[in-house]
Amino acid sequence: VASAPAPFAGTLLGTTIAAVARRDRAAERAARERLDRMTKPPGSLGVLEDVAAQLAGIAGRCPAPLPTPATVAVFAADHGVHAQGVTPWPQEVTGQMVANFLAGGAVVNAFAAEMGAEVVVVDVGVATPLDPAEGLLDRKVRRGTADLAEGPAMTLEEACRAVEAGIEVATRTAPGSGSLVTGDMGIANTTASAALVCAFTGADPAAATGRGTGIDDPTWERKVGVVARAVRRVPTQPSTPEEALAALAEVGGLEHAALAGFVLGAAAHRTPVLLDGAIAGAAALVAHVLCPAALEYAFAGHLSHEAGHGLALVHLGLRPLLGLDLRLGEGTGALLALPLVTSAARALRDVATFDSAGVTGKSG
Amino acid sequence: VASAPAPFAGTLLGTTIAAVARRDRAAERAARERLDRMTKPPGSLGVLEDVAAQLAGIAGRCPAPLPTPATVAVFAADHGVHAQGVTPWPQEVTGQMVANFLAGGAVVNAFAAEMGAEVVVVDVGVATPLDPAEGLLDRKVRRGTADLAEGPAMTLEEACRAVEAGIEVATRTAPGSGSLVTGDMGIANTTASAALVCAFTGADPAAATGRGTGIDDPTWERKVGVVARAVRRVPTQPSTPEEALAALAEVGGLEHAALAGFVLGAAAHRTPVLLDGAIAGAAALVAHVLCPAALEYAFAGHLSHEAGHGLALVHLGLRPLLGLDLRLGEGTGALLALPLVTSAARALRDVATFDSAGVTGKSG
Repeated sequence: VASAPAPFAGTLLGTTIAAVARRDRAAERAARERLDRMTKPPGSLGVLEDVAAQLAGIAGRCPAPLPTPATVAVFAADHGVHAQGVTPWPQEVTGQMVANFLAGGAVVNAFAAEMGAEVVVVDVGVATPLDPAEGLLDRKVRRGTADLAEGPAMTLEEACRAVEAGIEVATRTAPGSGSLVTGDMGIANTTASAALVCAFTGADPAAATGRGTGIDDPTWERKVGVVARAVRRVPTQPSTPEEALAALAEVGGLEHAALAGFVLGAAAHRTPVLLDGAIAGAAALVAHVLCPAALEYAFAGHLSHEAGHGLALVHLGLRPLLGLDLRLGEGTGALLALPLVTSAARALRDVATFDSAGVTGKSG
Repeated sequence: VASAPAPFAGTLLGTTIAAVARRDRAAERAARERLDRMTKPPGSLGVLEDVAAQLAGIAGRCPAPLPTPATVAVFAADHGVHAQGVTPWPQEVTGQMVANFLAGGAVVNAFAAEMGAEVVVVDVGVATPLDPAEGLLDRKVRRGTADLAEGPAMTLEEACRAVEAGIEVATRTAPGSGSLVTGDMGIANTTASAALVCAFTGADPAAATGRGTGIDDPTWERKVGVVARAVRRVPTQPSTPEEALAALAEVGGLEHAALAGFVLGAAAHRTPVLLDGAIAGAAALVAHVLCPAALEYAFAGHLSHEAGHGLALVHLGLRPLLGLDLRLGEGTGALLALPLVTSAARALRDVATFDSAGVTGKSG
């Protein structure tokens, strides 16, 4: 087959995709070798051995630098599908929570403080007007998406602008950060997430649609119906970047678009990116079709309680580091996983080898 | 029924058991109420909401103080059952790893540095002589246990002395620590752990016996046989403190005894204690029969890859915070869980409420 033309040539999205290189396999091999010589039984750090090797591959050297300090970018946007009654939360909560993030009062702020991470809040489409504030980036593409139950959530051009806003935030934050962390806020965004999971994995709407922040049975049934009808408008399992962007525009959210761009941007800057839960997982499905190699830079912070998230992670081949039944978003689950990733890097860097410590190895 | 006489009256063990109070239910209720008013959907922090409430109950106030700084106590001892060929590692590795801990070269040191935790190493029964060193507490009860395949691993008096060594270490470290973390080192100690799990839960030896640091099939079969024969000498499922101590002496290890005491001591000082993996889980079974209320102060840091650990946690009703397929010991899995516990405390303390942040609640 002839090679496909470069997708989105001449755009920021196109140059970003072109800039993503695969991980450095030699550095990963060096990490595996060092892990086997460290004063511990081979393989005894379990999943953290994979994390350490992945970090070395990302950095292109062994040991890898510590992935700190981290920056968490919370992408906030609203959803026209809110009109379908898919959540008991009023839409104005999105803007109110943005103010809460900026005042330092939310869970993401508490966890970021614990982890020494910086919080950046990005308005990519909050419906209510927001006052300018320290720590708030105004990248509003539109005041919330259109209702995905009725038609396209956004235009292709809007989807592209939101993706590029995410890339820009990664480009702005990656240089001073050891790692990037995905965050999100948007009332009704688990509905769009479920639709994306169905579109990109072929999953059944009832299997991919969860209870979000806590909904009753009639609301859940309504939500499943909305997802099922919306997904029928999208060709299943988009396999080209253009198809992925079209599906994103049809049933996604502005924060999903921005998060997909944020993942691409992190990869283009060879920076580890920790994915939070259901919203980030859906966005990662988009990023994966836009640029498969970008996911080589990603860690799944946790497995959300939300139904579709596990389907997304299985599809992407990502094993979540935590399983705490979280269903909050904001980046909270990814921040909680940060010390695991950092500890893996620290072990690879600091632990003595059998030779250097004078410890006898096992026989046989 | 008449109340039983106080167990071990007049001994440090007896006074410690008597000093353990249950958690403060009023503080736990206050924490649950605050968690429901915090700016997040009710229940959305999943397991961490239980952790936050438990910390409040332990501290007797809401919010609870942060469980930092932590102190990890690594209890080291050797095992006579090593003679049965249950592990490919030479026995001298126990003492060599103690030297590695003291030099700061082991994984527990790397993780403790990451978590800002202090490492204390306690010799409760290393077979090889150890030079005095900063950070090493000499509480050697004997030079390794006797071979539990052939007869009692230790006398009742030795078991009691090792338990009391653990209590003493908790008493020494609790005042300056926000939490205590269990650590362990002892070649062949998963064999004694499996025997304790069988004795205290009634589990089948083949189900409770794992592959430790990595053993082949013939070694595993030998290990199962050793465990099965040893357990036959012990009345199953000891239900009194005296029976628990007898089972511990018959098939346990000196570090298991010390860890059981460490858990009791933490509880007596109303200090949260993070349990590491298979060795700590087996020791917690002993502590639980010595003093059921002591386990109210415990968190299970992770679920070890080692077979019997899950059985111990189910028996104790403890849900592990992490599942990373670790099988290293030293306290590594418990240290990795520390940021989760700290983050739960920080959220309870710092996150704004709907009222204070001006965020609208959900309808219905």
